[in-house]
Amino acid sequence: MQNFPSVLLQRAVQEMSRLPGIGERSALRLVLHMLRMDAARIDALAESLTQLVHDVHYCSKCHNISDTEVCSICSDRRRDASTVCVVENVQDVMAIEHTQQYNGLYHVLGGVISPMDGIGPSNLQIQSLVDRVQAGGVDEVILALSPTMEGDTTNYYIYRKLQSAQVRITVIARGVAQNDELQYTDEVTLGRALAGRIPFNV
Amino acid sequence: MQNFPSVLLQRAVQEMSRLPGIGERSALRLVLHMLRMDAARIDALAESLTQLVHDVHYCSKCHNISDTEVCSICSDRRRDASTVCVVENVQDVMAIEHTQQYNGLYHVLGGVISPMDGIGPSNLQIQSLVDRVQAGGVDEVILALSPTMEGDTTNYYIYRKLQSAQVRITVIARGVAQNDELQYTDEVTLGRALAGRIPFNV
Repeated sequence: MQNFPSVLLQRAVQEMSRLPGIGERSALRLVLHMLRMDAARIDALAESLTQLVHDVHYCSKCHNISDTEVCSICSDRRRDASTVCVVENVQDVMAIEHTQQYNGLYHVLGGVISPMDGIGPSNLQIQSLVDRVQAGGVDEVILALSPTMEGDTTNYYIYRKLQSAQVRITVIARGVAQNDELQYTDEVTLGRALAGRIPFNV
Repeated sequence: MQNFPSVLLQRAVQEMSRLPGIGERSALRLVLHMLRMDAARIDALAESLTQLVHDVHYCSKCHNISDTEVCSICSDRRRDASTVCVVENVQDVMAIEHTQQYNGLYHVLGGVISPMDGIGPSNLQIQSLVDRVQAGGVDEVILALSPTMEGDTTNYYIYRKLQSAQVRITVIARGVAQNDELQYTDEVTLGRALAGRIPFNV
């Protein structure tokens, strides 16, 4: 696109279109919408973004985003500190918390091993997980990464690193997802669901 | 969604999700991506948005967004000031400029008449168009609104308002779009294309 009628407009559109999934056309649409919004609203948006990127903290124990040195989950004494669930990112913590089925703590890796994207173990919070387990008090490490090649590679790497430690290592169940139709389930998932069958229980 | 691990994160996500077409889930994705970007980049984004909404100007003649009192198109003496093309918004000006087929000036209405959305003639730059034509020097007004019910209503309203003025009123051609397949063209478009047929010209 070109022929922007205003340099201010052009700059705002350019900055917006640096965000993932926002092309120049949708950036223009968003920015023109902002011009119809209350200016105070845009000030609040701009300030919240600036404040976030400058003041963000990560929990010193689990590495989740936090406003405090130790996050509210890690410092909650009602939670089971002997169980640590390893996840890729903040969204995964929020998704698991949303189930209300988990009462242990987390460890946020910040990604998965992906040589294609130049992400190796040293770019992730893996050593801090090993240190955390070796410090004692952890009985079980639950691997809850996405069931992809990268997730599986990362699971295996962590498994090897923790093998010598006195800790139970588990992985979340893989099988047919709730409400999925069997005939449309891919063969790997279906094969694993069969191999991993459990006693029927009313 | 709930259970945000950080108030700063929650606030940024809430502000982002006020934008059109950005739900809470994609706002979270965008904001977490920003945390991996250079903080200076986010400062530049925030500043460009704040500056735009506070310092934006509209051309006093055509009402397009402009950095100056009169925009660069209206003040360009090489352009034909006797022809005024009426469009809905900034994007339409950019689209027409992009064709490089038009050398006249514009008049940006800022929308179309839409009673359902509470937009009447007084919310648009229609009176200023009438004033502009009555001030003289305009020979032709080209109506280039979208061929929708709202666009047609607005066309007709402007036509009635300018009827008494000594000005030629035209509307952009409607017909089958370039590269559209005839069998998939809707009946209204096809009917109009037939009715509006012109002599074949090699």
